[in-house]
Amino acid sequence: MQELINKANIEALERLQKAKPTLVGIGVALDNIPGMTPKTILHAGPPITWDRMSGPLRGAIIGGLIYEGLASNEEEAIKLAESGEITFDSCHHHDAVGPMAGVTTASMPVFIIKNETFGNYAYCTLNEGLGKVLRYGAYGEEVITRLRWMEKTLAPVLKAAIELKGPIDLKTMIAQVVQMGDEGHNRNKAGTSLFIREVAPYIVLTEYSNEEKSEVLKFMHSNDHFFLNLTMPAQKSALDPLKGIPNSSIVYGMARNGTDFGIRVSGLGEQWFTGPAAIIDGLFFPGFTKDDANPDIGDSVITETSGIGGFAMGTAPAIVQFVGGTPQDAINYTTMMYEITEGENEAYKMPAMNFRGTPTGIDIRKVIETQILPIINTGIAHKDAGVGQVGAGLVRPPMKCFEDALEAFVNMMEK
Amino acid sequence: MQELINKANIEALERLQKAKPTLVGIGVALDNIPGMTPKTILHAGPPITWDRMSGPLRGAIIGGLIYEGLASNEEEAIKLAESGEITFDSCHHHDAVGPMAGVTTASMPVFIIKNETFGNYAYCTLNEGLGKVLRYGAYGEEVITRLRWMEKTLAPVLKAAIELKGPIDLKTMIAQVVQMGDEGHNRNKAGTSLFIREVAPYIVLTEYSNEEKSEVLKFMHSNDHFFLNLTMPAQKSALDPLKGIPNSSIVYGMARNGTDFGIRVSGLGEQWFTGPAAIIDGLFFPGFTKDDANPDIGDSVITETSGIGGFAMGTAPAIVQFVGGTPQDAINYTTMMYEITEGENEAYKMPAMNFRGTPTGIDIRKVIETQILPIINTGIAHKDAGVGQVGAGLVRPPMKCFEDALEAFVNMMEK
Repeated sequence: MQELINKANIEALERLQKAKPTLVGIGVALDNIPGMTPKTILHAGPPITWDRMSGPLRGAIIGGLIYEGLASNEEEAIKLAESGEITFDSCHHHDAVGPMAGVTTASMPVFIIKNETFGNYAYCTLNEGLGKVLRYGAYGEEVITRLRWMEKTLAPVLKAAIELKGPIDLKTMIAQVVQMGDEGHNRNKAGTSLFIREVAPYIVLTEYSNEEKSEVLKFMHSNDHFFLNLTMPAQKSALDPLKGIPNSSIVYGMARNGTDFGIRVSGLGEQWFTGPAAIIDGLFFPGFTKDDANPDIGDSVITETSGIGGFAMGTAPAIVQFVGGTPQDAINYTTMMYEITEGENEAYKMPAMNFRGTPTGIDIRKVIETQILPIINTGIAHKDAGVGQVGAGLVRPPMKCFEDALEAFVNMMEK
Repeated sequence: MQELINKANIEALERLQKAKPTLVGIGVALDNIPGMTPKTILHAGPPITWDRMSGPLRGAIIGGLIYEGLASNEEEAIKLAESGEITFDSCHHHDAVGPMAGVTTASMPVFIIKNETFGNYAYCTLNEGLGKVLRYGAYGEEVITRLRWMEKTLAPVLKAAIELKGPIDLKTMIAQVVQMGDEGHNRNKAGTSLFIREVAPYIVLTEYSNEEKSEVLKFMHSNDHFFLNLTMPAQKSALDPLKGIPNSSIVYGMARNGTDFGIRVSGLGEQWFTGPAAIIDGLFFPGFTKDDANPDIGDSVITETSGIGGFAMGTAPAIVQFVGGTPQDAINYTTMMYEITEGENEAYKMPAMNFRGTPTGIDIRKVIETQILPIINTGIAHKDAGVGQVGAGLVRPPMKCFEDALEAFVNMMEK
């Protein structure tokens, strides 16, 4: 039986290695994301009902309903959210991912990523920047105003630039940033820089005004996490072809909704295995403490699922200034992740670790055998709706996800 | 006596640490570089006469004379160069630096860098890109055409953008690139990326055509070494205030003209101490070998003089793919350089080396005592005029420079 599983896992890793995530365009969520409707709100993590949602996810939904014009204030939004009229669903069920709350509504612009090898697509909203932003559960006027500007200016200018330039190979770009001190989850400075220099010559050639073009370039320049919302769907598109490989024990999805942490396993198809999302151990912004922190939230753990993020910290020691710890800790985390993964990434090589490929393809068997849980770099949202980011740090999934998944896996294999 | 020297060296290091190199504009060499005339040609390294110049330096001078319209072909240029009508001088004698041949002529645009702390200026031409370029001794039509485009389009667009944006703090930018896998001499991918994202929003706002703006952005994007020509004058401006500190044995200048390697020492003022430039040990482009290589050339060793470049290889292990060796070699080189330097850089911190500051301020006493020579990352020019780059690698100055400097230093101290 182990041989069958090993063979299936080799196939799973091979599909991941062969993936070619490519940015092919920008579109509107309603027109592009499968199953999207004007009254659908997608969110990060496994599916969850309104009554169980945490503060930041509720906050982002309130903001999403106001942005869509479905509610005109917080009270109306809450009433509507409670009414049952709104369809809530996981981004992951719609070929999409979203950082933190991950709230994606019908009018939002989304990056369109194609895995050129397998032909599947993935979608993600554009990154809003730092401070008070929807993805951290803020929904004040500045948040809504920024979302409208992103819809009316940022997205159209970038869309036109990408049309002029043609598809952008994200795999090669991510491979480069891994050699430039980004781990691709919580440090995206190199990625944001490479993306800007790639599109800037074409932004110039679009038919928008110089003021609009300049605003778009300044907006991206002001936010080193801009590239995160490209890395995430790139990795989603790379992992989705692993879904449903018979007998494979490789994890192809991990995500958190702020209440539950969920994982999905190749050989177990669409099923989520969930456990309570943990509180993050990290560095807090001045004025905030662990007591303010919401449990772990967001689809950005798709980066770790694909072998970057926390798994690639050894190539990005500067990140410890943001998430805590020492450069040696960063190397130790990466080294430890080889214990629970199927192989080494052929594209993502770490110069500081002698050009070794990042640990890639989490095997639920190895997690249980070694009792080593995946390490995740992440941002920390305030537990209350409407506040925003309060820090960044490191977290692990609950062991329960892996225990339940392995149990289901063994049951399936024994049938 | 050693106490006097130690005290002077602390002062020298302090001046270097306090430097604030800032890009304040772009101008024409003739109008900005002190002592420049229409018939002056500045070159890299210590002063040298035409008869002793190596192939690539001669090639670049031939190109420079054609570009200036002082000669219409190779033959005329050589005749003019031999005639004595042209004044050749070191860039370093005119507050300037130039990579490889370093040829700077009257009409060339130059970056204007100001050390905001001490008020001194430094100048450098704009980087031409890769392939057949003047700085590697090529002077064919494509080289001259590119130089004219740089004069007529690249420089004016960038100049206007910098005027709109205001001064750019290069020290902070270099500190960031040292955390992004650049060592600042032979790897400048992060620096080029950060510079582009900084100026792009203002390039858009200039009054040039969209086609010109896009060409300028594409040109910078196509050349990962673009930032080298900003790092070099930044470091020149940071080091020049060290000139002439009584009793200081710290090196404030190192440079090569393709024939001689020269160093200058703080307490010894303007004097050069020279020895034969060495052949570089490195990786050659396909079709070329060590037999094609010219000896070490260029002012770019100003980076090592100021504590980056080869001295910061430990933060840029990816560079070994370009210059040879292993990531561990890179760390070892950096570690070794602490043996010959006065202190650790307060701005340039290396995450992979536990955020230790780069080894900074070469002390000629320590070089002689330890017999450890500075390590230099560099490009390799073909030995013949007109060919171009053939590889990249590592090199050291001749020990003779340090022996002669120490002798002169001791003599001076004993007076």
